[in-house]
Amino acid sequence: MDTRDLARRGAQAARELLSRPSSVKDEALGAIARRLEAEAGEIVEANRADLAEAERAGLPAPLQKRLRFDRAKLAESLAGLRALRSLPDPAGRILEARKLDEGLVLRRVSCPIGLIGMIFESRPDALVQMACLAAKSGNAVILKGGREAAATNRALAAAIAAAGVEAGLPESWLSLLETREEVGALLELDEYVDLLIPRGSKEFVRSIMEKSRIPVMGHSDGVCHVYVHEDADPETAVRVAVDSKTQYPAACNAAEVLLVHSSFARRSSGPDAPTGLERLTRALEAAGVAIETSPPDWSVEYLDLRMAVKTVDSLDEAIAHINRHGSGHTDAIVAAGRAAAERFMNEVDSASVYWNASTRFADGYRYGLGAEVGISTGKLHARGPVGLEGLVTYKWKLAGSGQAVADYASGRRAFVHENLEGEVGSYYAES
Amino acid sequence: MDTRDLARRGAQAARELLSRPSSVKDEALGAIARRLEAEAGEIVEANRADLAEAERAGLPAPLQKRLRFDRAKLAESLAGLRALRSLPDPAGRILEARKLDEGLVLRRVSCPIGLIGMIFESRPDALVQMACLAAKSGNAVILKGGREAAATNRALAAAIAAAGVEAGLPESWLSLLETREEVGALLELDEYVDLLIPRGSKEFVRSIMEKSRIPVMGHSDGVCHVYVHEDADPETAVRVAVDSKTQYPAACNAAEVLLVHSSFARRSSGPDAPTGLERLTRALEAAGVAIETSPPDWSVEYLDLRMAVKTVDSLDEAIAHINRHGSGHTDAIVAAGRAAAERFMNEVDSASVYWNASTRFADGYRYGLGAEVGISTGKLHARGPVGLEGLVTYKWKLAGSGQAVADYASGRRAFVHENLEGEVGSYYAES
Repeated sequence: MDTRDLARRGAQAARELLSRPSSVKDEALGAIARRLEAEAGEIVEANRADLAEAERAGLPAPLQKRLRFDRAKLAESLAGLRALRSLPDPAGRILEARKLDEGLVLRRVSCPIGLIGMIFESRPDALVQMACLAAKSGNAVILKGGREAAATNRALAAAIAAAGVEAGLPESWLSLLETREEVGALLELDEYVDLLIPRGSKEFVRSIMEKSRIPVMGHSDGVCHVYVHEDADPETAVRVAVDSKTQYPAACNAAEVLLVHSSFARRSSGPDAPTGLERLTRALEAAGVAIETSPPDWSVEYLDLRMAVKTVDSLDEAIAHINRHGSGHTDAIVAAGRAAAERFMNEVDSASVYWNASTRFADGYRYGLGAEVGISTGKLHARGPVGLEGLVTYKWKLAGSGQAVADYASGRRAFVHENLEGEVGSYYAES
Repeated sequence: MDTRDLARRGAQAARELLSRPSSVKDEALGAIARRLEAEAGEIVEANRADLAEAERAGLPAPLQKRLRFDRAKLAESLAGLRALRSLPDPAGRILEARKLDEGLVLRRVSCPIGLIGMIFESRPDALVQMACLAAKSGNAVILKGGREAAATNRALAAAIAAAGVEAGLPESWLSLLETREEVGALLELDEYVDLLIPRGSKEFVRSIMEKSRIPVMGHSDGVCHVYVHEDADPETAVRVAVDSKTQYPAACNAAEVLLVHSSFARRSSGPDAPTGLERLTRALEAAGVAIETSPPDWSVEYLDLRMAVKTVDSLDEAIAHINRHGSGHTDAIVAAGRAAAERFMNEVDSASVYWNASTRFADGYRYGLGAEVGISTGKLHARGPVGLEGLVTYKWKLAGSGQAVADYASGRRAFVHENLEGEVGSYYAES
């Protein structure tokens, strides 16, 4: 099918989804789990074909590993799916309720965003997670996975789409694109697509941000910092810096730059003891990290066992450096006193700001969001790890009994504006 | 000053604002009120110059009226400013709090967006309101008002900027652009400007949306509908339709299209009694409205005493018509039964959806938001009337004691993910 038709049908499905109750969405997740189990044989078979092709094409071993989707991976996906099903519905919640006048009640109610384009590379398990996050939040979705996983994605998407429809989701709630040309066409379809969520290399994400007028949620760069303040405990500083850099260097939340206050850098516990800076760099080098002290560019995302290190003379200099060279993703301060930590956390303009903890905690699962579609470095709508809550918006519902504004404008009636706190947090359907 | 320098300084001010306490922001509003009162003579004088120039240039009378800023208008602005000051600070609030592990607490905290470009036409009182909304929410702002109000805007902006700085806001928290060329330059400065809020004609707003890569909050079109369902009470239908169209036809929330279910349209209380459709059209015509039954385009915003009227055969047809031709602003159903009203309010994909109430209620003041910067038809971040809450975003603050992800990845430690409900809604500074 033509991409425009596909998007038009997806937008139609998104509207039909707006009135599906939570029970249908949860039943869809149940049906998807059953169908994936029933079709495990075909799915694993399709994945074997992708793997064979990847080997023939000489795909690097780490990418081949990411591509693998066997019964163990399927079991992991199913466990995630069940956990997702048990979360409360993010849509249909009353966020605000106000009596404007007798018989005139305004409610701000969470609702799905609409049709979301989710574009990601390689890993087939991402397809299962993103499709199920969409179903749970009531959004229609157009997926595009990595080319290497084409057969696996096709098998997974067909099973998930059919199971959803069987459980009562509208036709076309999920569709799959297969070619770059289709993605190019999708980026133009701002009349149908409400949001794009790209995941992959920074070049990939940046190119999508540049090409489309559709709002994009995600991040291209993850230039994360650890700043060691003058009063930092040296052991804490070492633990946070080493974990931030080395626990998984290829992740977007791994730290790339270590900023060290000059007093801390010089300080040592005795004439022969190492300085603060030496303790840090030795610990990093012992963990296999190559230190860069004068990189040509302070905004480079190494994604590797390399780290840029800089001495700064003040908290202000650290904050200014991060706001100038960072990517607004995740930045940490190591400090003993609360005052400096609070200033850092307030003034560093990033989605996640930490005090005495590794930047690697920036993740939807670790944050307790259940699952994530990605990490957003944009400042509007959703910021940082994005779970179900980031996949909903809201609308204002006003229920009256024939009220006209003329009566209020003329002064015949006056607004009461009484907040109905008791309704907030409950589901609209129960109000 | 060069627009780029101005934006760079504004972005710097936005970062300094991130750590200003509520007391400074409220004191700024107090200082602004005092300064505007003290400089009332100069401001009114400047406005007289603008009015004289407008008359010389032959500006239409309604525009001249909007341009007027005399002592009475100033008093209104000051009353609004005091009401705004009394509202709670939208920033610094804990939106979510979770203990991830012993000594590792994650909080999602509301915070200002940063630097906002607010671009509006004519009315000088809009400048006061937008500047004060920015100060209250902790955002830096670059304002551009209508050319006709140049002298008034200059006097108002100078007084407001200086009073804010005197009360402790950072230098450059507010600046004023005066030329179209400067606005053109501002639209390119996405490295400094976080958000644009344009208010004015739809051509004006649309051109800004098309020209800039900076996120835009607002609306270009207000094609609002009233749908009269088959079971509607005829009197309610007349009251809602007439008020929606005629209470202030030039407003964006005035209805442009009336959809009438064919059963309602045909129904009458007796052989000589008028049909439902006749009652509606006669009432509208009596209020001076010209009826269009076959407009060449169903998406036209008349902003005048003209209304397009269409008969539809079902609720589905009404919803489909609105989603296709509407602008996602505000749409109302008149219906006796709740089931049809709920389907309408769920499936019409607009920011505000009403049951038995006039579309003219879509307004920040009427909604009880205190003040508004505009009405957003976008589906992300803020939707519908946008008050202080729409001018903040959030960041994730994690406070630990040296935790490393390696301990959780290896299974030596496990997350507890305990929600700290008691903290939610309180201010972070008090936690």
